Amino acid sequence: MEIKVLKKLMAAQEADAEISRKFFSDMNVAAVNMMSSPGSGKTALLEKTLEALGGEIGAAVVEGDILTTLDAERLARFGIQTAQINTGPFGGDCHLEAAWVRSAAEQLNLSRVDLLFVENVGNLVCPAEFNLGVDANVVLISVTEGEDKPAKYPIMFRSCDLCVVSKIDLLPALDFDMELLEKNIRAANPGLRVMKLSAKTGEGVGEWLDWLRGMSASKKQKI
Amino acid sequence: MEIKVLKKLMAAQEADAEISRKFFSDMNVAAVNMMSSPGSGKTALLEKTLEALGGEIGAAVVEGDILTTLDAERLARFGIQTAQINTGPFGGDCHLEAAWVRSAAEQLNLSRVDLLFVENVGNLVCPAEFNLGVDANVVLISVTEGEDKPAKYPIMFRSCDLCVVSKIDLLPALDFDMELLEKNIRAANPGLRVMKLSAKTGEGVGEWLDWLRGMSASKKQKI
Repeated sequence: MEIKVLKKLMAAQEADAEISRKFFSDMNVAAVNMMSSPGSGKTALLEKTLEALGGEIGAAVVEGDILTTLDAERLARFGIQTAQINTGPFGGDCHLEAAWVRSAAEQLNLSRVDLLFVENVGNLVCPAEFNLGVDANVVLISVTEGEDKPAKYPIMFRSCDLCVVSKIDLLPALDFDMELLEKNIRAANPGLRVMKLSAKTGEGVGEWLDWLRGMSASKKQKI
Repeated sequence: MEIKVLKKLMAAQEADAEISRKFFSDMNVAAVNMMSSPGSGKTALLEKTLEALGGEIGAAVVEGDILTTLDAERLARFGIQTAQINTGPFGGDCHLEAAWVRSAAEQLNLSRVDLLFVENVGNLVCPAEFNLGVDANVVLISVTEGEDKPAKYPIMFRSCDLCVVSKIDLLPALDFDMELLEKNIRAANPGLRVMKLSAKTGEGVGEWLDWLRGMSASKKQKI
């Protein structure tokens, strides 16, 4: 009986994801879901991204946190629209769900938005299990987190289209084996594209921006 | 009706935690539950701890991971007993529950064990919501994760007896505001004890070992 309940729940999630997919498509928006452990640098990368893209691509952010609007405030400084989801009132949920993200996105004026970033709750486990109906799922992993994370959290790495290895400016201070990380990533998801960057120094950010330009170009441009 | 189900679930969890508490007490074991984001350094600190304590205190570890026995293998090198819980077969659960930890602990010979470490699944959200019936809950936060985490994950910081700020050897490479972190910790949990250490250099580890000696001394010594 428990399994039936779970199946029903997941079927409802998938149906919701399909509605979101249609919504993003109708709005002509490329939606990018960013997931990682707490503190891997999602917000820092978004700050760097918004600064670099400037008016080149219309961007907006749906921000997911259990509590606080700290990240949304950091990003609103760039003059973009942000919608905050706080899961705290719903039991402190550890992930975002398709319906919540869509409700938040519906509050934004998307007429000039090409790229909609979804910054998920900081958690390397649960967010991977919820299909948000987005155009791309991205996992960030910082080099301070160790090489073993793809082996320990394979569902996350399997559910993503891109893996961003962040904070590479810290490599000189760490005993970090990049080859081992890449081997573990390939074992979890052989086809997963990997980019290495530092939002602090800007190293490698160009490749990320080009990838975003490609995501945006797959939709009809609005600016 | 959903709320009723949730209440019933949480009541069952609390009842299970009580059974675990009695089990640890009967076994004369001090159980320490260690929680953090993935990659904050729980296993590295346990390695340093087991190395430093040597035969001084009898230790064992219940290791929680979604998948792999990587961490248990790292710790078994110190000649201690380890019991691995992989939550993967149960849907990839993002936390440990009292009954699972107890079942794992029951597989160990605790006759010479004074300190039982529980290394929880790497996750700053869900593990905080499950009472394991242990003697102390510890949250690790590494200085690479940013100062805002106690504000964003207050339930974790509220549910703990000790906060370990890890990887302080990396401070020179970071723009990290320790005072801001401590302010955020106090805002989440004013009485929370904070220790700063580096498992790599050993700085600050003495205070942690003394705290563990105190935990152990609160039980009748077996060695």
